[in-house]
Amino acid sequence: MHKIEADVQLSLLEENRKYAGENREFLREHGVVAFNLMGATGSGKTMLIEKTADLVSDKLKIGAILGDVAGDDDFKRVTKHGVKAKMVNTGKECHLDAHFIHHAVEEFADVDVLFMENVGNLVCPVDFDLGEDYRVVVVSVTEGDDVIRKHPEIFRLADAILINKISLADAVGCDVDIMLRDARRLNAKAPVIKMDLKNDIGVENWLEWFFDAVERAKKYKSV
Amino acid sequence: MHKIEADVQLSLLEENRKYAGENREFLREHGVVAFNLMGATGSGKTMLIEKTADLVSDKLKIGAILGDVAGDDDFKRVTKHGVKAKMVNTGKECHLDAHFIHHAVEEFADVDVLFMENVGNLVCPVDFDLGEDYRVVVVSVTEGDDVIRKHPEIFRLADAILINKISLADAVGCDVDIMLRDARRLNAKAPVIKMDLKNDIGVENWLEWFFDAVERAKKYKSV
Repeated sequence: MHKIEADVQLSLLEENRKYAGENREFLREHGVVAFNLMGATGSGKTMLIEKTADLVSDKLKIGAILGDVAGDDDFKRVTKHGVKAKMVNTGKECHLDAHFIHHAVEEFADVDVLFMENVGNLVCPVDFDLGEDYRVVVVSVTEGDDVIRKHPEIFRLADAILINKISLADAVGCDVDIMLRDARRLNAKAPVIKMDLKNDIGVENWLEWFFDAVERAKKYKSV
Repeated sequence: MHKIEADVQLSLLEENRKYAGENREFLREHGVVAFNLMGATGSGKTMLIEKTADLVSDKLKIGAILGDVAGDDDFKRVTKHGVKAKMVNTGKECHLDAHFIHHAVEEFADVDVLFMENVGNLVCPVDFDLGEDYRVVVVSVTEGDDVIRKHPEIFRLADAILINKISLADAVGCDVDIMLRDARRLNAKAPVIKMDLKNDIGVENWLEWFFDAVERAKKYKSV
């Protein structure tokens, strides 16, 4: 039984890799830069898309594939901010995979930046490459200041780490410096950005990294 | 028995994570930017250190921890190029781990850039975080044009991918475009740089990414 489980897992990841590769080729062909947006439910992933769209829509056309187990709440939210969006209901799945994206991605050939908002979860999305350029992880102080070291893999492999809702840190008894320290122990290349999206704190630091990342990706795509 | 094996593997990675975190803190404290240099035996890892040292030593002090199963050949090579070096013999281990680095890293507080040259192997080093800022994978056309898709994980997680010895491609019947395509299917954020280190081809593209990466890392370390 162990052997069967291992085989199923392997062929799943092999299958995922094939679709991720095709997604990446499609995005490259059309000059689209994609961000796999990960984080727990309520961490602020959807608001990050909303705020980013508000601030960059004069320069970049933004698209979003929104993964949720059920419902279209996020779809309704982001479309109000001019984002071209598509909802993907994963049903029983606790993460997006490259196959879900494969069905959706063709509609986004005309955007500059595509957010793939993953299902709220800090564990399951880690192993599934979607074909993204970058991985962004959003974490809220309300998840507790031990949340980063409890989920090392997702933070180790992130290209940017956003600590959100810092204005609530005292109220929930969270020491943001512990989160910062833990993030830096796991990852030296990702900026760790303290934010409060609702109060527009840290947004300029996010945008600085975001524009830089988009430029770098476009440069490599064009070679 | 399966259970015991799984536990040993987990505690190994847990232990590795602890040392990697400490290495990363030490490097951050001293403003050292670290590159985990991976690739098969003979791919050109050591020559990359030699060439880089020759070209940047007026601006940056370079250090290198050289992982090999046995011997001090690489140590002798890089010290001739003004690199402060330390040999780490891994004995039976097919990869460096954070504990090996932990013993060595304290001697490198005074360098700007530290190369951690991993043991020649495209599989085993993948799971072991050393505390680096970036992962660089060097691959040679002599390894065959299917080598990248045969080793997806190491290329998927790379921050830069160098295809070396391109001048030999015709002689060994290697289609470099296949390697390029496979690399881009796995990874959109890493530059894929065609090189021939011995003939100084592609070195300026490598240096452009290298300096940019060093600057970005220093910026995040100082926050």
